[in-house]
Amino acid sequence: MSPSLTIALDAMGGDDAPTIVVKGADFARRRFPGLRFQMFGDESQLLPLIKRRKRLREITEITHTGESISNEMKVSDALRKGRQSSMQLAINSVKEGNAAGVVSAGNTGALMAMAKLALRTLPGIDRPAIAAIFPTIRGESVMLDLGANVECDANNLVQFAIMGDVFARTVLGTVEPSCGLLNVGSEEMKGHAEIQQAYAYLRKISGEINFSGFVEGDDIAAGKTDIIVSDGFTGNIALKATEGTARLITEFLGDAFRSSLSSRLGFVLARRGLRKMRIRIDPRRYNGAVFLGLTGIAVKSHGGTDAFGFANAIGVAVDLAAKDFNEKITRGLQNFSKMELEITEVAVS
Amino acid sequence: MSPSLTIALDAMGGDDAPTIVVKGADFARRRFPGLRFQMFGDESQLLPLIKRRKRLREITEITHTGESISNEMKVSDALRKGRQSSMQLAINSVKEGNAAGVVSAGNTGALMAMAKLALRTLPGIDRPAIAAIFPTIRGESVMLDLGANVECDANNLVQFAIMGDVFARTVLGTVEPSCGLLNVGSEEMKGHAEIQQAYAYLRKISGEINFSGFVEGDDIAAGKTDIIVSDGFTGNIALKATEGTARLITEFLGDAFRSSLSSRLGFVLARRGLRKMRIRIDPRRYNGAVFLGLTGIAVKSHGGTDAFGFANAIGVAVDLAAKDFNEKITRGLQNFSKMELEITEVAVS
Repeated sequence: MSPSLTIALDAMGGDDAPTIVVKGADFARRRFPGLRFQMFGDESQLLPLIKRRKRLREITEITHTGESISNEMKVSDALRKGRQSSMQLAINSVKEGNAAGVVSAGNTGALMAMAKLALRTLPGIDRPAIAAIFPTIRGESVMLDLGANVECDANNLVQFAIMGDVFARTVLGTVEPSCGLLNVGSEEMKGHAEIQQAYAYLRKISGEINFSGFVEGDDIAAGKTDIIVSDGFTGNIALKATEGTARLITEFLGDAFRSSLSSRLGFVLARRGLRKMRIRIDPRRYNGAVFLGLTGIAVKSHGGTDAFGFANAIGVAVDLAAKDFNEKITRGLQNFSKMELEITEVAVS
Repeated sequence: MSPSLTIALDAMGGDDAPTIVVKGADFARRRFPGLRFQMFGDESQLLPLIKRRKRLREITEITHTGESISNEMKVSDALRKGRQSSMQLAINSVKEGNAAGVVSAGNTGALMAMAKLALRTLPGIDRPAIAAIFPTIRGESVMLDLGANVECDANNLVQFAIMGDVFARTVLGTVEPSCGLLNVGSEEMKGHAEIQQAYAYLRKISGEINFSGFVEGDDIAAGKTDIIVSDGFTGNIALKATEGTARLITEFLGDAFRSSLSSRLGFVLARRGLRKMRIRIDPRRYNGAVFLGLTGIAVKSHGGTDAFGFANAIGVAVDLAAKDFNEKITRGLQNFSKMELEITEVAVS
């Protein structure tokens, strides 16, 4: 990583802000030597938190603002009234080239809208997408879009596939990552017109992208492909459905271990193994959803995460910045520059 | 249950047909005294299986056919070439009033298409939906559509809500079941035009249906509402995503218990509690997806289930038939007879 990488932090976003933001930055500092921070937020809250952390204080520049975006705020209100908010100022810092990326645990819709307006989309990208890494039986995969776009056409889906490909190579370090298109069946004729068109085009460029065809909902956790491409509506619901199921099973598992003295003892004996399992699916480890397709790096942390989770979201931003992620996407897109012209000519099977 | 209820079985559908069909019927027979079967399939395979089961033989009528629908067969081929197939003959038996319902573990698309053509939709229902019960932290809920309709308009979604309401009251026995519309956020302004329109209409009739507004992906397993209404594309992927996650966690749990001698011992001690947990989420218990909105009862069993699972699918058909489910839907719909006219007038917020 570059010795002078700076990340801008929206210090006021998230359920336990600014505490978890400062603590998370302190964790991340230890992991990435040379990292610097710009924190945007209420100085009267930030200074006492940072005073006790000498090392963090040395690498952090605080910019005071009394304004912030609440979770309940409508996107339109956030855009109109939030020009001096901690979120907007942090994004502006990336726009002006002062920071390599921005991390916020605040209002997702507002962050997306502000980042889109300030940073704009990369050439060749019509719409940004939200991407995140998640654990699978085979290892780790990346899924996009997770909710930036409620409706997507074939062009959007193809662009997501290309961005996902660069993401898997760059962030996950996967050689020749396989890419699947999320559908209601794996057979060629399944799905609606948009997904059929995207399928036809991805088949055509499968020399450039390792396209595995359609994948189904249960293929996500199975890790059938390294990249899962979806419209934002389905992707959001599928991801949250898996989170809900994980919570259900954890709850039932707790009931099972509490159900008798023998079970309680069993839990104590198996505790070390169970802890390893919990680490494998710990949502904090996978915290940090990326807004792909913008000219700057913007990462959304879960609002309810703790300092460890927030540090991981910072790690994602550092990773993308250090590895010249956006340059790689731009280069990747040049191979497909005629995409939009050609895609309309692909016959839907 | 009526003392002379007859269920038609597609004996040749499913991975291990006809063995699991015959065994499953034998299980179901013990659970529902007075139940009778019509089995459609290859006599040379069925007769040896049924010969050993005296009680089952007494209540079963076998109709021989050498034809069946494979899982790989396209829906159009199944419709054209499958007129004498075990699946079609079983459906016809419901159409002709000889059986109260049909159960098949065969090709889903073919079963849906054949059932729709032969049985037709109930008055007031534009499109049938696939519904299934699933376990939640709070108990059990029903979700629909799980894949019958890749694209749904507001009218379809509202009709699904009404059918889901009758289903929850009739099959789950829930008083005043709550109904949620699956979306990417719970805020009123979230989602696309169709779901916004459906929301507005369901709000309007919330005196008739206990409408709780939008629910998110993680609300499914949390059991936030008794009914989850979704388009078939998202519903199918969400349901399969939860199945995949359950498999992932089960796999990781196995790894955890195998990771050391102490963990292995812990597993042995906690085994009884863990078995109870496994029963709570056993997919066989929830086997049997219903095609709602047709004039006859049609239930789809999972193709890979065993005899216990198939017996549960038969149980679902018996339940619906015994409780006059379709009459209740028809009556329920009469309250909303002007729905289609009115829905276009509802302003989208």
